[in-house]
Amino acid sequence: MTTLDMLIKSLSRLPGVGAKSAARIAYHLIQSDGEFNRKLAVQIAELQDRVFNCSICGSYTETDPCPICTDSSRDTSLICVVEHPQDILTIESSGSYFGLFHVLGGAISPLDGIGPEQLAIGSLIRRIKDGHFSEVIAATNPTEEGDTTALYLARLLKETGIPVSRLASGLPIGGDLEYADRITLARSMRGRIRLGSF
Amino acid sequence: MTTLDMLIKSLSRLPGVGAKSAARIAYHLIQSDGEFNRKLAVQIAELQDRVFNCSICGSYTETDPCPICTDSSRDTSLICVVEHPQDILTIESSGSYFGLFHVLGGAISPLDGIGPEQLAIGSLIRRIKDGHFSEVIAATNPTEEGDTTALYLARLLKETGIPVSRLASGLPIGGDLEYADRITLARSMRGRIRLGSF
Repeated sequence: MTTLDMLIKSLSRLPGVGAKSAARIAYHLIQSDGEFNRKLAVQIAELQDRVFNCSICGSYTETDPCPICTDSSRDTSLICVVEHPQDILTIESSGSYFGLFHVLGGAISPLDGIGPEQLAIGSLIRRIKDGHFSEVIAATNPTEEGDTTALYLARLLKETGIPVSRLASGLPIGGDLEYADRITLARSMRGRIRLGSF
Repeated sequence: MTTLDMLIKSLSRLPGVGAKSAARIAYHLIQSDGEFNRKLAVQIAELQDRVFNCSICGSYTETDPCPICTDSSRDTSLICVVEHPQDILTIESSGSYFGLFHVLGGAISPLDGIGPEQLAIGSLIRRIKDGHFSEVIAATNPTEEGDTTALYLARLLKETGIPVSRLASGLPIGGDLEYADRITLARSMRGRIRLGSF
């Protein structure tokens, strides 16, 4: 196997990169300037040495605690619970939330053998009981597992009196009714909002 | 900028990788086994030191001449002319051709300032005049530039008497008439084949 074949094989193991895209990327790298390739290689090689999980919230960070946990300008009365570290990036990029985060590491899924004890739920409950939170946003995915996890958290936190909320489900903005799936459409119908009420 | 942000930025410069896929790949790399990352980094870092252009056909190779040019089992009476080295991989993967190749490095495009002298056409003509070819397949892309280049080659090679052919254009197999563009449909209409004639 040639170097090129081996690189294409490695690249095609990356998520969202098929055999054709892998070849396209490899050919691009042959022709790109050497400096870019050297930089990319170093970034990949050093990634796991530099990036680890924040000991408080579990997000990926290069300093412990992470920049979000130590940012005094953030609203420390809000905590947003997500399944994976990358969900933090997604929510941050929406610019709609300025509170703290907590990464569970997944969602409850009995079929996959993932129960509450496999997730960072114990540390979440301790954080909430030790803190001064006014709301817990369960931003797990809008899937059966994510919904189950959110309900589980709501039940666990009931005694604290802190409300647990869930992100709204419905039609994507800029979308088209015609392309909405039935379940999303049913959810957005049930969750319909009276005009003038917001 | 964190290591993760820098890696995402580098990855998003690769062809076919947008900001979202770059983030997805970076998060995958954080979680993947370290051995895979080290191997991928070395492959990227060493790529340009190991892979270069074949001095005969111009394809990417790690030995000179390349494995195709030195393969005595191939049909040395056929030469297939392509725009880019990666086109060789595509044609090879079809399993429909067993002759030699020649890479032009692009196609004639006066608007982009690419004339015959910017392409490996001189070396192609010398190869053809020095060799014993029975057919030249101009497998440049089915675009205006590719067609122009193929016609240019046919005119140059007219005096040699060696026929120059072009890949057939038409409907993709498994495709649907409804999704064919007008130009492809017009070409496949003009190039229609009488049943029983092949």
